[in-house]
Amino acid sequence: MTTLVFGHKAPDTDSTGSPLIWAWYLSEVRGEPAEARLLGAPNTEAAFVAERWGFDLPPVLDDVEDGQPCVVVDTNNPAELPANINGADLRSIIDHHKLTGGIETKGPIDITIRPLACTATIMHEMMGEKAAGMPEGIKGLMLSCILSDTLEFRSPTTTPVDRALAEKLAAELGISIPDYAGEMFAAKSDVSAFSEAELLRMDSKEYEVGGTRLRVSVLETTAPASVLGRKDALMAAMPAVAEEDGADEVMLFVVDILNEEATLLVPNDRVKEIAEASFDTTVEGDTVVLPGIMSRKKQIIPALRT
Amino acid sequence: MTTLVFGHKAPDTDSTGSPLIWAWYLSEVRGEPAEARLLGAPNTEAAFVAERWGFDLPPVLDDVEDGQPCVVVDTNNPAELPANINGADLRSIIDHHKLTGGIETKGPIDITIRPLACTATIMHEMMGEKAAGMPEGIKGLMLSCILSDTLEFRSPTTTPVDRALAEKLAAELGISIPDYAGEMFAAKSDVSAFSEAELLRMDSKEYEVGGTRLRVSVLETTAPASVLGRKDALMAAMPAVAEEDGADEVMLFVVDILNEEATLLVPNDRVKEIAEASFDTTVEGDTVVLPGIMSRKKQIIPALRT
Repeated sequence: MTTLVFGHKAPDTDSTGSPLIWAWYLSEVRGEPAEARLLGAPNTEAAFVAERWGFDLPPVLDDVEDGQPCVVVDTNNPAELPANINGADLRSIIDHHKLTGGIETKGPIDITIRPLACTATIMHEMMGEKAAGMPEGIKGLMLSCILSDTLEFRSPTTTPVDRALAEKLAAELGISIPDYAGEMFAAKSDVSAFSEAELLRMDSKEYEVGGTRLRVSVLETTAPASVLGRKDALMAAMPAVAEEDGADEVMLFVVDILNEEATLLVPNDRVKEIAEASFDTTVEGDTVVLPGIMSRKKQIIPALRT
Repeated sequence: MTTLVFGHKAPDTDSTGSPLIWAWYLSEVRGEPAEARLLGAPNTEAAFVAERWGFDLPPVLDDVEDGQPCVVVDTNNPAELPANINGADLRSIIDHHKLTGGIETKGPIDITIRPLACTATIMHEMMGEKAAGMPEGIKGLMLSCILSDTLEFRSPTTTPVDRALAEKLAAELGISIPDYAGEMFAAKSDVSAFSEAELLRMDSKEYEVGGTRLRVSVLETTAPASVLGRKDALMAAMPAVAEEDGADEVMLFVVDILNEEATLLVPNDRVKEIAEASFDTTVEGDTVVLPGIMSRKKQIIPALRT
């Protein structure tokens, strides 16, 4: 039975590229038939990356059947996985996020979680000497995952291991990292086709902070003006998104990749209070600029308080 | 601050030896000060092994303080760990059990779970080339952990990786595996000093099966007669142990290492029903012999039904 390899819902580049990388490794190196799947439509950067390196987008998977062999990558959070994940035959997890604690396996399986910037970097380590056999397309995906998750090494999640691997891959591929990252970020920044509700959910995770359920959304862009120009419509869409998703508030951080700062939308007094308590700032008006803030995992979530 | 390395409560040889092995690796190879701890008195085999290879038993740890750097080995189940484990600074987990789902980390950490027989085998893999520098005592602990968890390669949890490593270590140490395993198992079989309640809790895990909470206890021994000679007293002690520990029933499997079979004590009709539903057998009297049953993880737990 073919093993399905997939990342999290609302797939970004790492959750699109890493399943393709690992399905290649399982099928071609380890001789275990495997195919990549997506848990939803990928973002525009991930779609650009797949096409750039010659891959069709993997089919979208709605749920997994009982006993379906699966490999989960780039998450260990059941809220970001198919509803029946605990009924599937989960073979392994490869991830770089905190342990969430909702997945229970039937027996001991392979679990590899490392505090690296990107799942693809962990896969490179796990492949060992076999990584030398990666074809150009797989190398290109791996480079793209690292550049995406590190925002071209600007994010504080970047480790020397991620950076050294990206530079090695770029050299082998004859790629200029600044030029290629620029193309990727331009693709990610083209969000004109998405509705406000889609933008609020595109890269979003839920957290409970002091009893308040927050949907913490991030939009990484090289063109913040195109998002902030829609700020009134985005704030108007927040109450319905929050209600549908069972959250109390939506916090949208528009991350300006090139200027290394985030602009938080402040639709009401509750979000204003949270912003002032969390980021040592004073909010005037309906936005606040947070210099240096790039990473939800390393900077936003640890700071949030009510 | 010194990192504390510990395994599960009611420490066996792997949960005593693996913390000593990893504390050596962190301190001596990686230059990160670390010390082993025990979460209770080790069993007689573990105490024999530590003395045989020249180690003092690590101090017993009651709980961990907030922010204490910790490495957890040979378990990922919070029920088997200090009460404040989620308040500690958990640095990594190295384990070979199923993912239980109760630990939540503050950020991404190193987690390595592999379906191998023994935690020490995983540590050997993680050390890579550095394993060549292990002193004799560390090699002896590693060999002991493998022989203990595999019951000298008799348990179906044994993998070729565990076996090959044990044979390599024994050769380097100039040790006869049959002779040394015989000494270990004799030490484990000397349970004369323990009360019935202590025997029921010595190697025991709780599971819920069809709404019934079971304390599933195993005693691995080369002298089953010495345990089964206390069968009436053991069964008499079960109701109080079950009540104190919040279980409905205690199921004690006396594993005869040399004859590769288990004898289950059957104190009442409820346990009789479970035994007959789970093991395709008919129970007459207050014990039942289960040929070939050696492993709670691989054979008993997957079979249990009500």
